[in-house]
Amino acid sequence: MPLIVQKYGGTSVGNPERILNVARRVVETQKAGNSVVVVVSAMSGVTDGLIKLARQVSGAPTDREMDVLLATGEQTTIALTAMAINALGGKAVSLTGAQAGILTDGIHTKAKIANISPRQIRKHLNEGFICIVAGFQGQTLQGHITTLGRGGSDLTAIAIAAALKAKMCEIYTDVDGVYTCDPRVVPGAKKLDVIYYDELLEMASSGSKVMQSRSVEFAKKFKVPFEVRSSFNTNRGTIVKEEPIGLENVVVRGISIERNQAKVTITNVPDKPGTASRIFTALSDAHVIIDVIVQNVSVSGATDISFTMNGDELAKLGSLIDDVAAEIGAGNVIKKGGIAKLSVVGIGMRSHSGVAAKLFECLGHGGVNIQMISTSEIKIAVIIDEDKIEHAAKLAHEAFGLSEAATA
Amino acid sequence: MPLIVQKYGGTSVGNPERILNVARRVVETQKAGNSVVVVVSAMSGVTDGLIKLARQVSGAPTDREMDVLLATGEQTTIALTAMAINALGGKAVSLTGAQAGILTDGIHTKAKIANISPRQIRKHLNEGFICIVAGFQGQTLQGHITTLGRGGSDLTAIAIAAALKAKMCEIYTDVDGVYTCDPRVVPGAKKLDVIYYDELLEMASSGSKVMQSRSVEFAKKFKVPFEVRSSFNTNRGTIVKEEPIGLENVVVRGISIERNQAKVTITNVPDKPGTASRIFTALSDAHVIIDVIVQNVSVSGATDISFTMNGDELAKLGSLIDDVAAEIGAGNVIKKGGIAKLSVVGIGMRSHSGVAAKLFECLGHGGVNIQMISTSEIKIAVIIDEDKIEHAAKLAHEAFGLSEAATA
Repeated sequence: MPLIVQKYGGTSVGNPERILNVARRVVETQKAGNSVVVVVSAMSGVTDGLIKLARQVSGAPTDREMDVLLATGEQTTIALTAMAINALGGKAVSLTGAQAGILTDGIHTKAKIANISPRQIRKHLNEGFICIVAGFQGQTLQGHITTLGRGGSDLTAIAIAAALKAKMCEIYTDVDGVYTCDPRVVPGAKKLDVIYYDELLEMASSGSKVMQSRSVEFAKKFKVPFEVRSSFNTNRGTIVKEEPIGLENVVVRGISIERNQAKVTITNVPDKPGTASRIFTALSDAHVIIDVIVQNVSVSGATDISFTMNGDELAKLGSLIDDVAAEIGAGNVIKKGGIAKLSVVGIGMRSHSGVAAKLFECLGHGGVNIQMISTSEIKIAVIIDEDKIEHAAKLAHEAFGLSEAATA
Repeated sequence: MPLIVQKYGGTSVGNPERILNVARRVVETQKAGNSVVVVVSAMSGVTDGLIKLARQVSGAPTDREMDVLLATGEQTTIALTAMAINALGGKAVSLTGAQAGILTDGIHTKAKIANISPRQIRKHLNEGFICIVAGFQGQTLQGHITTLGRGGSDLTAIAIAAALKAKMCEIYTDVDGVYTCDPRVVPGAKKLDVIYYDELLEMASSGSKVMQSRSVEFAKKFKVPFEVRSSFNTNRGTIVKEEPIGLENVVVRGISIERNQAKVTITNVPDKPGTASRIFTALSDAHVIIDVIVQNVSVSGATDISFTMNGDELAKLGSLIDDVAAEIGAGNVIKKGGIAKLSVVGIGMRSHSGVAAKLFECLGHGGVNIQMISTSEIKIAVIIDEDKIEHAAKLAHEAFGLSEAATA
């Protein structure tokens, strides 16, 4: 019997009525002739409530105890979901992360999955049960409860699908799938039927927050196909899978945008070994998360270095960069918020020149000034003024013909 | 280092402020030179909230899933309590029932403790940690989560104290200890410094709801001394321990009362083997819980049988008893609510005649009519009209000199 792993996020199980809705979908999936494992998150709001409770007893709750506390959120959902399925005449059994055999390292609040021993899951599936597994959590070899950090429930689902060699892993969320661009920005944006792991990774790291990168990376590593779809309707979603060998046809898959960015430029940085390292080590020590870094070739022994970050990170900088710049004998430091990043993503562009040219041309014609450019194998990102981002997204969406050619 | 097991009930950990209060007591106990294991219940109201959630997804939630759901209540408290202790500079680690090695049978929602493997607790204690253990829960050999039913957290504490051979088990609750009688009924009632297991058992089964009988029975079986005391002050409570051999001095320890009782009398029951069995098997099959049963010696081949029960049980009877009475050829069936039970308890009365006489005399002088009498080794119970119960309690409390002689 083919095995389907389904994952339902916090909004999909946000109240008893929605849990019953999920239960109905699950029972139908089993009736259609599948074995089913369901991974659920905490009901929306529950985790925040628990964090608030913790803050009331401790200014700095221990990570180990935070995990014990937060793990109750998913445990509540698995019990309720199993009850709901049983009430509908199905046969379900709930399993905590530990019971499901999710073994992790000991880094509390952001543990990594070390291994999965799906012995219990297999046993229950063989007996005809639907297994309801708590996402986001596991245990160490020593039996301590751990949580996997942000996006952990997706990771649980993908990892279980990998361990059980599931036919498909369905990630249910509150969006219909992955779009060529944010439909609120570009009304002509279309839902993609298929996207490849690397493309979704670039989309994810560029602001399309359908899924955390780590889950996509895990799926890619273990070749787990999955589908991103909505729990509030029965529309097919977007299937994410391995790129076929020799793919040449599609050039650009989608456009993703990220607002509220900031940029820092250090001028006249002496072109000596170690200067870049000094700058970015200082930033890393201050826990400032950097996105794009651009450095041009050196002219006359000095260069300009620019980097971008989330606008909220700018405040963390203080005089840090000014101090480092003075120390390394650089020129001015220019800090600027109010910018945004537009990324054009597609595996096909690896072997196609002309994508960059087309992007720059459409933006230039449309009066959008490009401040920085950064490229990877399958992405071209440009930094522009934030108030131009919607206009730019529409221009690029049009230029690459995404409204008409939304399917793979 | 001596080991103290402390148990805090739902009201004692009812909110973050109270959890911090508990944390302070625990840290002080450790600082006084003890190893400490703390057993906590779910915060008051939490369990009811979870049951309500369950009812919203299922009319008849499965017992297994109910246990998974309810177990989150204590898991939340252990994490918060450990955090609070850590925030106060203590070293605490939380353990679920499963982690603490509480092994139970598989009867979900009312599991019995089968064994305790306190390996983890010992390890953490040896490392100087305070162990915070979730009460009320355990796991089966197969790894299923179970709960112990009513009074389960007390049982967890007593069982851990037994397994670890603790010096003392302190049961913190919202009362100061065990009293000679309910102080709301008899203003002169005194707190007892000491009471013996059997006495507390008789008090418990007679309406003094300090603790469930099963926990006292467990403590008696494994000779675990424990103290019932309040978490809201620092007063010493009541120590419950083994009866010394040859105890002769104290006659009556206390008076307990139980209101809202009902009585059923079947007249003219033929005095043949099997008739009593017919009656009480029928009651048992209908899950009616019976308290006192009285049958007098047979006169002329027929007898009257009376029994009492909680007033709420009376409605469950329907025509059951009338049918059985007709079937066995008995006379009338008389059902009567509005009665109450008064019990005089004390180990000493085993070897003292005169206790019954003194009780009957003081009630008779006070104008209280006795409807039924039932005695055990260490208890005399009388059934009287409910509106006379307070008066009767005061009369008996006075007659046995309990106001003056409250200490063992």
